[in-house]
Amino acid sequence: MPNPTAAILVIGDEILSGRTRDANMHHLANVLSEIGIDLKEARFVSDDEPAIIDSVRALSKGYDHVFTSGGIGPTHDDITADAIAAAFETHIDVREDALTILKAHYERQGVELNEARLRMARIPDGAELIDNPVSSAPGFRLGNVYVMAGVPSIFQAMVQSVLPSFTGGLPILSETLRVERGEGDIATELGALAKAYPDVSMGSYPFQKDGVYGTNLVLRSSDRVRLAAAKEDLIKRVQHDA
Amino acid sequence: MPNPTAAILVIGDEILSGRTRDANMHHLANVLSEIGIDLKEARFVSDDEPAIIDSVRALSKGYDHVFTSGGIGPTHDDITADAIAAAFETHIDVREDALTILKAHYERQGVELNEARLRMARIPDGAELIDNPVSSAPGFRLGNVYVMAGVPSIFQAMVQSVLPSFTGGLPILSETLRVERGEGDIATELGALAKAYPDVSMGSYPFQKDGVYGTNLVLRSSDRVRLAAAKEDLIKRVQHDA
Repeated sequence: MPNPTAAILVIGDEILSGRTRDANMHHLANVLSEIGIDLKEARFVSDDEPAIIDSVRALSKGYDHVFTSGGIGPTHDDITADAIAAAFETHIDVREDALTILKAHYERQGVELNEARLRMARIPDGAELIDNPVSSAPGFRLGNVYVMAGVPSIFQAMVQSVLPSFTGGLPILSETLRVERGEGDIATELGALAKAYPDVSMGSYPFQKDGVYGTNLVLRSSDRVRLAAAKEDLIKRVQHDA
Repeated sequence: MPNPTAAILVIGDEILSGRTRDANMHHLANVLSEIGIDLKEARFVSDDEPAIIDSVRALSKGYDHVFTSGGIGPTHDDITADAIAAAFETHIDVREDALTILKAHYERQGVELNEARLRMARIPDGAELIDNPVSSAPGFRLGNVYVMAGVPSIFQAMVQSVLPSFTGGLPILSETLRVERGEGDIATELGALAKAYPDVSMGSYPFQKDGVYGTNLVLRSSDRVRLAAAKEDLIKRVQHDA
């Protein structure tokens, strides 16, 4: 059985403007890989309602699980929750369960739950809350879409909160072979190997370091035995061809 | 006049599998920001022909410029050039101009131009070649889509090759204000500022460091005078509100 599939939608200008490098896609890619869910697509859009709505609909339809990151804070440009509700044509308002969590949090901190912060209790009807152990304001799941915060520490904590609910496939194992030969030199042999092992995915990543041209060959499979066999075969092919 | 818009499509499993962190989106975001082109969307898909075709068509239609990265090497999973040709319903084959470049390169290197390497001379009809000063194998432009290599050093060199042809808008300037207050504390004032300066974009990025909660406020505009005015106003608002 093929592994379940997933996509991530990163919302906001922070990365598209070049201000910061992505962290959340990278984190999710690693976590999903470990539990055997294939991250098949990632999209980054700005805080733009039509862009969010279109992307969420397309990804929700195309993949088993969709994770979003960003745009659920208290500021005027935090429009993710409302856009998700619109994408699913669901009503959204301040919800009692989320409000209770925020009230308790800000009381503990001695901080006013003002109108801006109240926005963070806006949750679509029918959504399940996602626990936020870092700063309380919850994420939520609606259908197959998991809506989470953009701040990396909170995003990671929320991923941790939802992980137990996933039935992943088998963990994906990988083996890397570093070859000091150009891709073009070994491409024919790689093609033959890929045909011989259709159940082992193969990536070749050329590099150039200190004047040396080479290729990192990465084999990936859930099947330890097939992976080992493919690696052995690869080593032979790459040596014979030299 | 609004700035021209752009999107990037990153092709391949390297980043989606968690193996590497993105470099090309981040580089392009910074370069475009400097010359006044707004990067509005990024997509990452695997070496999957339908996924590439769908994404290229959607992005080419939605934005002024589209940049792709990855999948133009010599291996069996390098299918980007063929997928781009299919997206535009254009014929593709080994092309004389690209072949001449590759021949010269491999002759200089004393390396055989084998069948695998010949794949890198496959260029769609009507496309313009993009110079690759690092390893010769060219990228190409077809319509508003710039097809470039995934290896970061080559991607960056190709971006450099095509930059002079762009008519960007005005460079986008930015000012950052670090405030040791939570987003929720200042969100109302930020909303008011955004309304007063619709021509200045504003991002607020919460952080948490050594137990301190705070927010980085980033103002961005092509207009130096308006940017300075917005910053001054922001400082006042954030102080008054304290």
